[in-house]
Amino acid sequence: MTVEAKGEFTPVDPGFEARVRASFARQAVMGSFGAQLAQVEPGAVAIAWPFRADLTQQHGFLHAGILATMLDSACGYAAYSLMPADAAVLAVEFKINLLAPAQGERFVARARVIRAGRTLTVCEADAFAIQDQGEKRIAHMVGTIMGVRDNPTLAG
Amino acid sequence: MTVEAKGEFTPVDPGFEARVRASFARQAVMGSFGAQLAQVEPGAVAIAWPFRADLTQQHGFLHAGILATMLDSACGYAAYSLMPADAAVLAVEFKINLLAPAQGERFVARARVIRAGRTLTVCEADAFAIQDQGEKRIAHMVGTIMGVRDNPTLAG
Amino acid sequence: MTVEAKGEFTPVDPGFEARVRASFARQAVMGSFGAQLAQVEPGAVAIAWPFRADLTQQHGFLHAGILATMLDSACGYAAYSLMPADAAVLAVEFKINLLAPAQGERFVARARVIRAGRTLTVCEADAFAIQDQGEKRIAHMVGTIMGVRDNPTLAG
Amino acid sequence: MTVEAKGEFTPVDPGFEARVRASFARQAVMGSFGAQLAQVEPGAVAIAWPFRADLTQQHGFLHAGILATMLDSACGYAAYSLMPADAAVLAVEFKINLLAPAQGERFVARARVIRAGRTLTVCEADAFAIQDQGEKRIAHMVGTIMGVRDNPTLAG
Repeated sequence: MTVEAKGEFTPVDPGFEARVRASFARQAVMGSFGAQLAQVEPGAVAIAWPFRADLTQQHGFLHAGILATMLDSACGYAAYSLMPADAAVLAVEFKINLLAPAQGERFVARARVIRAGRTLTVCEADAFAIQDQGEKRIAHMVGTIMGVRDNPTLAG
Repeated sequence: MTVEAKGEFTPVDPGFEARVRASFARQAVMGSFGAQLAQVEPGAVAIAWPFRADLTQQHGFLHAGILATMLDSACGYAAYSLMPADAAVLAVEFKINLLAPAQGERFVARARVIRAGRTLTVCEADAFAIQDQGEKRIAHMVGTIMGVRDNPTLAG
Repeated sequence: MTVEAKGEFTPVDPGFEARVRASFARQAVMGSFGAQLAQVEPGAVAIAWPFRADLTQQHGFLHAGILATMLDSACGYAAYSLMPADAAVLAVEFKINLLAPAQGERFVARARVIRAGRTLTVCEADAFAIQDQGEKRIAHMVGTIMGVRDNPTLAG
Repeated sequence: MTVEAKGEFTPVDPGFEARVRASFARQAVMGSFGAQLAQVEPGAVAIAWPFRADLTQQHGFLHAGILATMLDSACGYAAYSLMPADAAVLAVEFKINLLAPAQGERFVARARVIRAGRTLTVCEADAFAIQDQGEKRIAHMVGTIMGVRDNPTLAG
């Protein structure tokens, strides 16, 4: 049930980590939600963030869309870590299954690449609530990410 | 391409609109993002919200997770509008296809029920950027929502 | 609830219909299941097929994978109808919601394009059981299709 | 990348394997396609089947819908293995990502439960082409399965 990539991917850009971190820093929504990059490996990224009462749904749990935000960014950056330095990354589609209520003080989204293609990359990701007794998986995502190399209006 | 339900559903709870509006008001994330319920019909709900620079991804567009937040709430309330008064609503899963960059000053998410079952309801929804020359569809969602009637920890 | 494309797409290849029909004829599985192309319009395709007891699941209904087969081909050809004459078409991903048991003598899958992009096309499709009193929707699909133009091992 | 369940589930019905095998035997489509149950563990099922030229798409690969058929049955039976003896199982929805062409002489679909709930079970599954040099992953599925206990028209 681990989602760590096990060294199966070799990045084409040795500067992948700095590139991922710079792009993450440009995602204003990550700062707004207090999210941090917790791990950047070739083909695997983790994002951690705290509970926020202003981001909840009607039962007081984190809204599923907030989980989707973190899982989608984690998937996008896992894909981006394997792309060439001049690529931009766009989410094509994703699917999320909600497995348990998003209850907890802190959360982590872990994504890994399951197929790295020339144009399209497929990732899977899990969100966990961090609890005293360990982590509880609360959501699962599968997503498709496109690498774009010829669009001057997009950068990183 | 319209997503209006055309009177095909009859709500079992005549007070469905007040019930939807009360639950929406309890979703703290909706207020945080400046979202408003723009339409509540039996089996169809629209949510409108403004662009917010603090909710953007690395290219300055709204993050896909924000679209997912609005589309998921629209789907959930479209399903909830057809449920009995004592039901709570939980998202089971959803899938989103991103069709165009989320650029614009204002946005709307429109959801409608495509199957209302005893336990599970299936909805589809579209997000549009509102522009001078009309609306542009930017995302499409299909989601499954569960009605829960026997869980004392959930209300509305 | 109609899934007809309403003249919103103009095919770049005026020979699109012959091209779709020729590719469909090469899908051996379509002939094996008795399926026929019932409609070919720019951006919209319908496939009809009969019930077959040898394609059922444990309750005697058509297996969901048979619905997926027809819906996926319908989506693929709806996308293919809008592509240039030298393109090949590959399914990237699809999601299907099962709405009712696949009971009936005859079935039809209707697909339409909801976004035609340079590389990726998004389609939605519905499967219906044809009954005395009309059609009953039994499944809904959303799928992503890639057009490939530079792969010599693929044709049509 | 393994999809084996690691003893994390305890079946409520000690006769789960015979029950799964009996239901599989009633899926006419499995026999029609030459499929066999290759593994039945609590929360994990594998189905193996041969290439068949009459089930191909236009490029001569197995049609994606055939992969969906096998992955969906594998998911359904992985879920079913954990259900009580009087339950029936229905597919609610599934999503499949196609990762590589379905080329090969033999294939296997491996599914495992990632969440077993009272009403809904979530599974993931992978399809592999079996090659001289090992297995190649060709498709990934995530699906939701409902257990039904009060429907007299369904059995197993």
